[in-house]
Amino acid sequence: MVSVDINCDMGESYGNWEMGNDEGVMPYITSANIAADYHAGDPHVMRETVALAAEHDVGIGVHPGLPDRMGFGRRTMDASPEELRDFVIHQLGGIRVFADYYDLSMQHVKPHGAMYTMLSQSADHTRAVIEGLLKVDPSLVFVATDMNIYNVAQEYDELRSVFEGFIDIDYRPDGSLIVERKVGPRDTDLMVERFVSMALDDEIETPSGEVIEMPADTICIHGDGANAVEILEAIHAEKDEYGIELAKLDEIV
Amino acid sequence: MVSVDINCDMGESYGNWEMGNDEGVMPYITSANIAADYHAGDPHVMRETVALAAEHDVGIGVHPGLPDRMGFGRRTMDASPEELRDFVIHQLGGIRVFADYYDLSMQHVKPHGAMYTMLSQSADHTRAVIEGLLKVDPSLVFVATDMNIYNVAQEYDELRSVFEGFIDIDYRPDGSLIVERKVGPRDTDLMVERFVSMALDDEIETPSGEVIEMPADTICIHGDGANAVEILEAIHAEKDEYGIELAKLDEIV
Amino acid sequence: MVSVDINCDMGESYGNWEMGNDEGVMPYITSANIAADYHAGDPHVMRETVALAAEHDVGIGVHPGLPDRMGFGRRTMDASPEELRDFVIHQLGGIRVFADYYDLSMQHVKPHGAMYTMLSQSADHTRAVIEGLLKVDPSLVFVATDMNIYNVAQEYDELRSVFEGFIDIDYRPDGSLIVERKVGPRDTDLMVERFVSMALDDEIETPSGEVIEMPADTICIHGDGANAVEILEAIHAEKDEYGIELAKLDEIV
Amino acid sequence: MVSVDINCDMGESYGNWEMGNDEGVMPYITSANIAADYHAGDPHVMRETVALAAEHDVGIGVHPGLPDRMGFGRRTMDASPEELRDFVIHQLGGIRVFADYYDLSMQHVKPHGAMYTMLSQSADHTRAVIEGLLKVDPSLVFVATDMNIYNVAQEYDELRSVFEGFIDIDYRPDGSLIVERKVGPRDTDLMVERFVSMALDDEIETPSGEVIEMPADTICIHGDGANAVEILEAIHAEKDEYGIELAKLDEIV
Repeated sequence: MVSVDINCDMGESYGNWEMGNDEGVMPYITSANIAADYHAGDPHVMRETVALAAEHDVGIGVHPGLPDRMGFGRRTMDASPEELRDFVIHQLGGIRVFADYYDLSMQHVKPHGAMYTMLSQSADHTRAVIEGLLKVDPSLVFVATDMNIYNVAQEYDELRSVFEGFIDIDYRPDGSLIVERKVGPRDTDLMVERFVSMALDDEIETPSGEVIEMPADTICIHGDGANAVEILEAIHAEKDEYGIELAKLDEIV
Repeated sequence: MVSVDINCDMGESYGNWEMGNDEGVMPYITSANIAADYHAGDPHVMRETVALAAEHDVGIGVHPGLPDRMGFGRRTMDASPEELRDFVIHQLGGIRVFADYYDLSMQHVKPHGAMYTMLSQSADHTRAVIEGLLKVDPSLVFVATDMNIYNVAQEYDELRSVFEGFIDIDYRPDGSLIVERKVGPRDTDLMVERFVSMALDDEIETPSGEVIEMPADTICIHGDGANAVEILEAIHAEKDEYGIELAKLDEIV
Repeated sequence: MVSVDINCDMGESYGNWEMGNDEGVMPYITSANIAADYHAGDPHVMRETVALAAEHDVGIGVHPGLPDRMGFGRRTMDASPEELRDFVIHQLGGIRVFADYYDLSMQHVKPHGAMYTMLSQSADHTRAVIEGLLKVDPSLVFVATDMNIYNVAQEYDELRSVFEGFIDIDYRPDGSLIVERKVGPRDTDLMVERFVSMALDDEIETPSGEVIEMPADTICIHGDGANAVEILEAIHAEKDEYGIELAKLDEIV
Repeated sequence: MVSVDINCDMGESYGNWEMGNDEGVMPYITSANIAADYHAGDPHVMRETVALAAEHDVGIGVHPGLPDRMGFGRRTMDASPEELRDFVIHQLGGIRVFADYYDLSMQHVKPHGAMYTMLSQSADHTRAVIEGLLKVDPSLVFVATDMNIYNVAQEYDELRSVFEGFIDIDYRPDGSLIVERKVGPRDTDLMVERFVSMALDDEIETPSGEVIEMPADTICIHGDGANAVEILEAIHAEKDEYGIELAKLDEIV
């Protein structure tokens, strides 16, 4: 059996505004990246999302973003490495205290949106964030969304880091992501095919037909995708026959 | 020797705006109530204030307020007990993670401004906050600013709670506080006299001459008061001759 | 023919979060109450909503709320009359400048949520808001949601004020509203019946069968109601046979 | 007589946090750039600052910044030209409505901090902002802080634009500014000398001794500078003997 984690961004509602389909998606995933009141979420959504994750035995992670709620954390900003570090630590603290509230522990950290972009473009920013996390809790799993970040993470022996792959966002042949603001419905068969290929063979095919290396320990599904639950159900239905088992990051790293 | 704690609100700067005189005051106090990005503070100020407290061996507490930065947390709002609980837990998490960052632990929680007013007026709100805190960390000291809150806190055997007195705000004969937005310079001799009276005799004299009971374990000094440092220096200079020693809450309760 | 206005709260999306069905509803209404970046909306949503209203020749109003986005402006807060006045003026300025951007003029002001509640409970607050509005633009129509507010508005001869009725929220026999957070689907026939009764006879029947006076110049439909468009279509289909014509507030007052 | 305007950033207090010395500085300047609730200011500060400007017959301008209060609008962000335009229009609307409240009119617009930087680096962003302003009010004076922005402004015949010089920030020989976060006390004689040189000869000397062209119609003084009032007093005391008169932008352009 091959073990792989499925992670999903969660807790992106805010006040009276609902986003995503957390209740529909949570039963099918193994790790939840929970927004922490910067780009999305609020204290009540944070607490409720931690509780929902616990109910389905899903690993609890923080999904730290930039302090730009109007822009949903998707606009890079000229913040220093130390500023990013403090933003991440603060958001970790917010999710972690609600985990404590339910007597749970934190599993992982996965940077969101433009914060991920900034880390990808600056090793100094990535190092500041990682060193901050290690001071707070060296057992946290750090999810690296691209090779730039992953390579910096590898500099730290004491850090548990994993590489993340996507199936509902297409890759370019150079391994970069073709990000679109809204994820429309994706072909379920293609999604399962990509999932299996990534889990078993560490590779994925681009829309233009190149097969690229993608040694992902965790695979991201976008919970606000139009047919996310359908894709997840199909993966669950077919995983056994391919010898794939789902396991949360803590059990994989 | 009688032991008493001196607490002060700290970390109330925000971004480019400075408030208070944290560096001047911190050497003279034993417990710091640190704002947590709701009514004041930001992630950098939070971290720096925790570091400053640690440098002077001052007990670290969170000073949770309402999410009303423009109003500095001084306007009551129609929030439910559960909402207040989540606000407090979230803010606790923010300060605590920066304490962890410096390998320190949290000592106490003291509600700020209109949050304190709301707790004073509603036992349901106070119970929700206390029960939330107990789920996260039953070792935290809860600072009660008036008898309404203190009496509710006493319902919880497992809670370490203390009563707080003020010397630079005047009391009415009924024990309520005559709160003014800005604390002007106060007479140093009167402040020392009140401090000694509260520490040794558990009482304080009102401006109109009544002596009222004030069994305070911790005495609050407003760090943004015009002559706060001078008052603190005078207390330090005279405490020994009265047989008073300063000790942080953790050592008193 | 009897003329009546239909108003609807609009522009309540925020950043990446969508709310309501502005595009579906706008063709059927005559006055739009547009959120102004306090409880909902942002500068882009404000501009786009003004443009959408203009496209359908809908009267442009501001829907001022409290500065509590997390609570969607639904929690009263202890703000002074002068503070409310400044909040309303500021929000008026925001919508008005986008109206200018499209060479349009402002029609009306309708307080939102807990701001309406606060006005209803305090004539001082209502007077401060009205006097502020009159200083900025005495031609604005002020929409009063209940009799408390309407009676204060009547004190000002130079103010154009109107009384507002609801059909998709039920009234109590005393004329107060039975507000629920989410407006579920309402019976279309009942909604049309109430609309006609309010437009022609200035009265409405409560769920318990009492007929109460409701001299409304403008009738509010909640655009985020489950079947708001269906209700609006039914009203449009039947209005002629009852001799009712729709007209924006500017044409009625 | 040569006429020149003195402008100053004003209204940068926020809630309980005070910044600058608006009351001390306002009597000596001719144009006020007022923050508008994005990077600084709040509705009450906005109104009070407009009133203070009116009291001293100072021209009223908006000082639009980025929506980043924690960073005081000093961090560039990846916002589009249309987003910047909407931010500026919205802030203009906020100050303008308070001007209306006091029966005054708007004079000018001067972009703040990182918004100025973004305009300097992108003609597309500058064009979007200018075209937005022209749609709202073609009589507004647009203050260009550097030649990049000024040159784009010159493309618009219908736009009244002016070039701005600084005396309390040093220039590099290439005309760029040596910006420092805090403006310490500056030598009063040097400041007056620079003021006279800029007003009479359209030039300024850099710290390294080069004389560079600086055809400024308006000269900025930083009101939060340590000795801003002293510098302004010295300018007022000596201007007559140099044949310089102070005049607000509206009277110069």
